[in-house]
Amino acid sequence: MPFTTGVLLFDDAEELDFAGPWEVFTMARMEGDRVVSIAERDEPIRAAKGMRVLPDHTYADAPPLDVLVVPGGEGTRRDDPARLDWIKSAAADCTWVTSVCTGSYLLHAAGLVANRRVTTHWGYVDKLREQGNVTVLEDIRYVRDGNVVTAAGVSAGIDMSLWVVGQLYGIPHARVVQRLMEYDPAPPYAAEV
Amino acid sequence: MPFTTGVLLFDDAEELDFAGPWEVFTMARMEGDRVVSIAERDEPIRAAKGMRVLPDHTYADAPPLDVLVVPGGEGTRRDDPARLDWIKSAAADCTWVTSVCTGSYLLHAAGLVANRRVTTHWGYVDKLREQGNVTVLEDIRYVRDGNVVTAAGVSAGIDMSLWVVGQLYGIPHARVVQRLMEYDPAPPYAAEV
Repeated sequence: MPFTTGVLLFDDAEELDFAGPWEVFTMARMEGDRVVSIAERDEPIRAAKGMRVLPDHTYADAPPLDVLVVPGGEGTRRDDPARLDWIKSAAADCTWVTSVCTGSYLLHAAGLVANRRVTTHWGYVDKLREQGNVTVLEDIRYVRDGNVVTAAGVSAGIDMSLWVVGQLYGIPHARVVQRLMEYDPAPPYAAEV
Repeated sequence: MPFTTGVLLFDDAEELDFAGPWEVFTMARMEGDRVVSIAERDEPIRAAKGMRVLPDHTYADAPPLDVLVVPGGEGTRRDDPARLDWIKSAAADCTWVTSVCTGSYLLHAAGLVANRRVTTHWGYVDKLREQGNVTVLEDIRYVRDGNVVTAAGVSAGIDMSLWVVGQLYGIPHARVVQRLMEYDPAPPYAAEV
């Protein structure tokens, strides 16, 4: 059965939060699989650092999803009931519901992580705890609880997506994807001084 | 003096090749700095995996750049003399000329890496050597030779960009950027089996 992955876009979503998972899931695609971006309206979103991206679908015409990716960024702080409604309904039939960075706040607000263990960007751990009814882990790249996988900040969405790809397609395939995107990271300036 | 970074976009550029550096350089911005995307025409490009991005500038109205980022992807294989001319002229005044993945082929074709040491995606090392007049290193995240910094495949653009940020703003600032984007990568499925 082919998989459809939907990457949610909205104004002030953080670029790498959605582009990292986008790269991983599109690289993983096999015959019939689709990866689509979805926004409220059929017009470009302006991401948090200014990149303008055209969505493939709107809330109204998005296909049923097997995997939902909810990015974080400044745009998550906006009160947006239509977004929460859409997340809730899109997530209902998903095999995996995922978030990156402060995208976990949207999953929380949509009622999708009640009494679950999650993570988020290190700078937003305490505030997410204050929302209540959730256990927020820190110093961890991603947390899986049931069918919800929440990643830490920004770049952690890459690690999380590779993990999900391993669950969907098997670990050997995830390793091929990792190799194709040459993900053998070596951050510079790592030495303590 | 504020820095302007230009990220080149074209059809079938690989998404993470440009989105990774975009995230790093925008996160690093200080007062007055700009990070802009540049394409031939004022219309959306369709990246290699289908993401449609609107450029901030065209070749005709792009500002002078301090840093140029040339992504790779299928779109590099297209013969496009206007693109080479633009790269050549934009690079002339740059402090740093950079590429990600097969973007190094464009730097080579533009005559910017003659007799220099470079790298590229692991799957394209041999073909780049066949172009001649260049030394292609492998199993390395990025190579700096003079003011040219070429990164390995896709995700390596993140490491390369952080290194350049350290050169532009100092290493402590690069570490802040790394921390803000929570770049403590931990690829899953890393164990040998």
